Parts: sequence; structure tokens; C-alpha cells
Amino acid sequence: MPLPDLCCARCRRRHPVRSLDWLCACGGLLDVTPFDREPPRLDAGGPASMWRYASALPVPGKDAVSLGEGMTPLLPVPDLPGVTLKVDYLMPTLSFKDRGAAVLATLARELGVRRAVADSSGNAGTAVAAYLSRAGVSCEVFVPAATPAGKLAQIAAHGATIRAVEGTREDVAAAAAVAAAQPDVFYASHVYHPYFLHGTKTYAYEIWEQTRGELPRTVVVPVGNGTLLLGAHLGFAELAAHGLIDRPPVLIGVQAAACPPLAEAMADGADESVPVTTTPTTADGIAIARPARGAQILAAVRETGGTIVTVDEEGTGAARADLAAQGLFVEPTSAVCWAALLAARAGTAPAGATWAGALPHLRAESVVVPLCGAGLKSP
Amino acid sequence: MPLPDLCCARCRRRHPVRSLDWLCACGGLLDVTPFDREPPRLDAGGPASMWRYASALPVPGKDAVSLGEGMTPLLPVPDLPGVTLKVDYLMPTLSFKDRGAAVLATLARELGVRRAVADSSGNAGTAVAAYLSRAGVSCEVFVPAATPAGKLAQIAAHGATIRAVEGTREDVAAAAAVAAAQPDVFYASHVYHPYFLHGTKTYAYEIWEQTRGELPRTVVVPVGNGTLLLGAHLGFAELAAHGLIDRPPVLIGVQAAACPPLAEAMADGADESVPVTTTPTTADGIAIARPARGAQILAAVRETGGTIVTVDEEGTGAARADLAAQGLFVEPTSAVCWAALLAARAGTAPAGATWAGALPHLRAESVVVPLCGAGLKSP
Repeated sequence: MPLPDLCCARCRRRHPVRSLDWLCACGGLLDVTPFDREPPRLDAGGPASMWRYASALPVPGKDAVSLGEGMTPLLPVPDLPGVTLKVDYLMPTLSFKDRGAAVLATLARELGVRRAVADSSGNAGTAVAAYLSRAGVSCEVFVPAATPAGKLAQIAAHGATIRAVEGTREDVAAAAAVAAAQPDVFYASHVYHPYFLHGTKTYAYEIWEQTRGELPRTVVVPVGNGTLLLGAHLGFAELAAHGLIDRPPVLIGVQAAACPPLAEAMADGADESVPVTTTPTTADGIAIARPARGAQILAAVRETGGTIVTVDEEGTGAARADLAAQGLFVEPTSAVCWAALLAARAGTAPAGATWAGALPHLRAESVVVPLCGAGLKSP
Repeated sequence: MPLPDLCCARCRRRHPVRSLDWLCACGGLLDVTPFDREPPRLDAGGPASMWRYASALPVPGKDAVSLGEGMTPLLPVPDLPGVTLKVDYLMPTLSFKDRGAAVLATLARELGVRRAVADSSGNAGTAVAAYLSRAGVSCEVFVPAATPAGKLAQIAAHGATIRAVEGTREDVAAAAAVAAAQPDVFYASHVYHPYFLHGTKTYAYEIWEQTRGELPRTVVVPVGNGTLLLGAHLGFAELAAHGLIDRPPVLIGVQAAACPPLAEAMADGADESVPVTTTPTTADGIAIARPARGAQILAAVRETGGTIVTVDEEGTGAARADLAAQGLFVEPTSAVCWAALLAARAGTAPAGATWAGALPHLRAESVVVPLCGAGLKSP
């Protein structure tokens, strides 16, 4: 199967995947063009990893750059029947980003590229560095100058060259974009390269298989750049297109109150993320003030009948402690969804239209909440 | 099925499991008495965790205290055909100790105990704290006063009470033993409680299933207290007893040259660990100067025709970097086996009888090497 090309989400211009384009000349974001897929099958068997769904991925599974990622446990929660936790930090680099990084690294090797750049202070940078190293592709990772030493050590261990950039997260992205504009450089971006989302869509497939096709009513997802949310939306949409499910679950996004550009857009009825004043948050993985795919995220959530809510630092901290008491130590970013569910069920959720709209979904008889990153990422 | 009792490995005295005994009055260590098992089956299916082998475990699987542990990936190594890495850090608390902790916590709940103690500065303490918290059992963890803050944070996050003890690792164990001697206290010891090894034996079962019964010739294991080695030995011995394999793989133990009581015993032909002078090592998880089950470890290794070798700090560091370049970031303790394999294959292994005896096994056509703990445990 040839590698599917990309196309502009705005002007529909086609971009050969070998062009290494990651943004259209019109400024539009790129998506993957439709390609012939074989739908996943229940009981198809195959490896106990996301590559059991290789036939539905845009890269060849037989040559996958794989570290065994995916097929993470779906755990019941004591005393909360119907609520399950998808333990998606049980991944080679300890976060769900490995789903997308494995696909990007496989693509990079298929394309024969030698050099790649990425930008991330955290989980995506680590995942991309690990998988590109395995693929034999040299990698520069642009990070904020203030990135904690532990995270830098993890990225450096995988052989990536670290480029520390003074300034905002946007300044880091801008520096990466300059490097990515060099000839023959692959921008291994979890935000801009749409192949990444075909990795994270396996999150939806796994829930479908692990529930034996009896999907939950509600799927809750933390939202910063939306890599898990958009992947989950894509996966459920594909299952529906194949007639394998009646309707996708309702997607409920959760942001930190300290950085709520999408939750506020939802409250305002806006089609794009809105400017916000941010404050510090422990949920650094979703502290994205201007998500590039904001419009896609909002459209995806609305299409499922969902909404986006915020939780505060106190709620996030309490949720993290509650998960640890269940034996599951996660980073703060991973605790925001649990905080939202606990608030909805305890009746302590704040007022407001988006929260009111979220309550029935967070209290639904079946809800899946992800645990995206290990606690040691941010002890 | 009733919970099998314990018996003294030295005087054969029987100890009811409900007695909470963990050492015989004669000073002997306790083992689990033989119990009726159903052997594991290839293609039996079941959950994608170690509980697919519940019928072979001493605790009931239907009430397991589980976080989805086990069935970790077995990965090929690029350019080394026949060599596979068992990525056993893809566990809820990020180390293989979860296998044993899940069984101990299930036992604790079955026994109805309310209080437990453990002693460990590292992975076992974290695993036991997490699983006992999920089981609703309060837990005190005795640790060396010098334990790094990150590890303490992880143990404390699971709600365990931390008791810092000045002195050596033996002083810590002695303090834990005093606490464990209180009435109705469960000593959740990865060293003394033999149920733990029935958790780690699933490591062997999984290799058997993942290789479709075509076991590797050699299984390499890091050795400190021997919880993985003794568990692997037990698992392979059970498979052989059921006629499912012709012979167990050769077990090659690896210790840090900085703390080699078992490697030196092997070189000396001794039946028990020998006193050694230790020096600092990054492989802190196996820096055990006086392993309680030393005699059992030596006997197990010899029974398979294996031996125990040492690797130095430089080799461990280089092996860790080599694994990270493959995309796999592990703690130093997890890199010692890889260091041994690389030395054997590069012809750089030191001289000496035990190393000479290990070379053909480490160069065998099929070898499994475990990655026991995530790199962020010790960045």
C-alpha cells in the first residue's frame, strides 16, 4: 500500500507525503487523505500492541518501528461500577504519545529521512526521541529553556540533540519551525503531522475491542493540543463509517482552569480557540494557550454532543491523590479527567453552561477515563 | 481452593498461611507447600495480564488485586537475531515487582489483614505500597534514611507511612522485622514471603507463551535478592513438571561487580552467598550484600547449568546508553544483563571460570534479557 498523501484542511490542496510539508502555503493545517483501510475486527488476534490494527494504519505494520506500545489495560474502578480507567501510561516511554511516535517514526524510516526535528518540553519530545532513535533517524528536540532536568535527561538519553529556547512555548515552536524548513528535514510534530493522529486513533480501537464492541457512553480526554482527543475522534469515526458501532461515544474534553482556551471557546460558542490569560498549572502537558488544531478539536467535540470543562489545581491535586490511593501514580496532567469525573459525581462541579452540559455525560452509566502519563514524569 | 500453607525450607515444619509467619523458629526460610495447579495453556486466552495464569497461582484470580500487570512485550533486538528483550517495566508501578506485589496484596485481602509492613528503598516498596493501598490494607514501608526524595514521594503517594531508618540495608530490614512481629501484622516482604515468587513466576509463563512454547536456550536475570530469578526458576520448573517443556532454559544471573556475594560464591563453589566488601554502584536494586535466599538462588542457577557473572559500572552505563539508543530507557539495575550480553558477544568479558562458563550461554542462538525498571526510577 502506498503511503497516503496529505491535504490541506482549508484549501484542499494535495501535499505529497514525501514533500515533508507540514503546513499549507495558505496557512491551513494538513490532514491525511482518505486511504483504503481494512477495519479492525474483534477477535482478529495479532500482536498485543496497537499494531494488531496495522491494516487500518497509513504505515506498513510489518516494518513498524515498535517498542510494544498499546493494548494498555482497561481497569475497573472500585466502588464506581461502569467507570473504567485506560492505563495508557503503560507505554515504552511512559505516555500515550508513543502511539503517535511509533507511526511517525515508521513513516520517517519509510521515507528514508535522516534528520528530524521536534518541539516539546515533555512527553511528545521523549516519545519522538525514543522512536526516531530506534528508527536510526537523528533528531533535534526544541524545548523551553526552563524544562526540568529530569525530562531533558530522558530526551538526551535517547540520543536527541536538545535545543533550549528562551521565551514562550510559541517561541519554541517557532524555532523548531525554522529548523524544520531546512531541506530534507522531517518535522516529527505531534501537532502538525497528521500521521500522528492515526497512531493515537488506536486508543479508540482498543476501547472498542476491550469492551467487546459495547462502547462506553462517554469518553473523557485531557485537552491541550488535542492529540489524544482528535485521535480518539478519528478512531471512533472510522468504526462508525465501517458500521462497527452505531454512534461514537460523547467526547468530554478537560482543560486546566489555568489555561482554558478551548473550554472558553466552548462556553462562548466560538469555532476557534479564544485568547486567554494563563496562570501556572501543574498540568503542564495541556498548558497550551493557542492550540493549532483548536477549530478541529471544537468541531470534533461538538459533533459527538460533548463539551469541554475546566478543573482547578486543587481538584487536580486531590484527583491525583485519589488515583494513587487506587495504586495508580500519574502525572498531574493525567489527573484532570479524574478530577472532572469526581466533581460531577460529588456534585461539586462549578456552575456554568459547559459544566451543566457535561454533568449527565460524566455521570453516565459507562465512562472511560485515560491515565496518559506516569507519575514519575513529574514527581 | 484453600490458600496453600507455608513450610520451612530447612526443617519442613508447616506454617499455616494465616499464622502470618515469615520465618521458621529454626531460622529457616519459608516456601509455599505444594498445591494443586492447573498448568497454563497456550491459546487459553484470558485477560492480557499475568492473571491469565490464575489457575496456576496460589490466590484466587477472580478477586485479584490487579492493576493490569503482566503480559509485557517481548521485543526483538535490531541486528541481533534470536535476542529478545522482555520489557518488564511496562507495569503499573514501572517495575517487575508488580507481579509479586499483586499476589501478596491479593493474599492480604483474602486473609483479612488490616496492617502490613514492608522494607525496601526502591521498586518493591513502591509496588507493595501501591497494591496494598488498592487492597485497602494500611502499610508502613521501612527505608534507608538516604533514600532519594523521588522514590519516597512515589511510596508516600500511595498512602504508605514511611519509616526512615539510619544505618545499613540490614538495619532497615531488622527494623521492619520488629514491626512485622507485632500481632496481626502482615509482613509484605518480597524476600521472605514465598507467595511473592508465585507472582514473579508468571515471567517464565509469559516467555513460554510468547515464544509459542519454543523457549530460549538462555534466560538472563539481574540478581540481588533473587526475586525474579527464583520466580523464573519456579515457573520453568512447573512447566517442566507438567511436561509442557523438555528442559528449563539455562539461567544466567548478573550482579554488579561492586556487590557480588553470589557471583563470588559461584566462583568459589560455595553453597551460600559469601561475605564481600561492597563499593558504591548505580545498580542499587541488586546491591544486596547478604541475600537471604542466597542458597536457593545458587542451587537454582546450578540446576539449570547456569552461572552468575559480574559487570562493572562502566559496562552498565554503556549498556544503559545502548538500550536508550534502541528507544528503551531503563534504570541502571536493568542494564546489567544487557552489559553482560554485550561483553560476551564483543569478546570483552573478563577472564575467570564463571565468565568462561557463561559465554556460550550468553552467545546462544536464543536469549531473553529483561528490562526490569523504568529509567525515570533513577534518572
